[in-house]
Amino acid sequence: MSAEPTAEIYDEDNIFAKILRGEIPSHKIYENDDFIAIMDVMPQAPGHTLVVPKAPSRNLLDADPVVLQRLMPFTQRIAKAVLKAFDADGLRIMQFNEAAGGQTVFHLHVHIIPRHEGVALKRHEGGFAAAEVLAEHATMIRKALKEIA
Amino acid sequence: MSAEPTAEIYDEDNIFAKILRGEIPSHKIYENDDFIAIMDVMPQAPGHTLVVPKAPSRNLLDADPVVLQRLMPFTQRIAKAVLKAFDADGLRIMQFNEAAGGQTVFHLHVHIIPRHEGVALKRHEGGFAAAEVLAEHATMIRKALKEIA
Repeated sequence: MSAEPTAEIYDEDNIFAKILRGEIPSHKIYENDDFIAIMDVMPQAPGHTLVVPKAPSRNLLDADPVVLQRLMPFTQRIAKAVLKAFDADGLRIMQFNEAAGGQTVFHLHVHIIPRHEGVALKRHEGGFAAAEVLAEHATMIRKALKEIA
Repeated sequence: MSAEPTAEIYDEDNIFAKILRGEIPSHKIYENDDFIAIMDVMPQAPGHTLVVPKAPSRNLLDADPVVLQRLMPFTQRIAKAVLKAFDADGLRIMQFNEAAGGQTVFHLHVHIIPRHEGVALKRHEGGFAAAEVLAEHATMIRKALKEIA
């Protein structure tokens, strides 16, 4: 890419756009007018969650600041639920921009990864988790979200 | 830590609190009422920048949502300048919570790390960068920030 990231194209057929349109399924934890929180299907740790804005943008660089204003308060709320659901010792929050930055799906998203002392992260794209496990984890986080509300 | 992160103590003597009080120096790029953007003294890549809220919080988990509302629009603006200043191919944004999550300074901060294709990141705490290099990098980002304003 050049130093003009907004020249990059937003691909309407990226995986998250398809999930947002309901064309492919996801393990959804929570949804409001602005965002969905879903399980990462290739988790780096159990409970690896993604926050995805509904508004289209390739990544942070071309995102509407109005969306960004709402992004971190929402992420905080989901992060607290992830921490509680997995009784984690910490959390890693990551957001990648462009392929060189680690981005693989070109629709803005934030990773919430629960961490436990002494447990290394799996690499991203290390393999798909079983659907029933992801469904159970989404249920655990939804429950925690209600408890901390 | 427990699953009640707000029970953790905010240490007023953490490095960023000292920088915010002017007790120790930093390579400052930009400052407004809410945040400072400074160079990471142990950069994982040239241009590694930190956004630090002025309001005290240990990390994302205990941060004031009002601060969080302003955090990502500010981070976006600085990120664009970092990208431009270093002609980067991408950016990695990271935010760590608690030691298990990779946090080493217990005052909320966001990492902005420029990435170039084929260039691996150095590990964090891999060593201090020379002060004159950090000063030059801060100048480069400040210049880019003015150009994109």
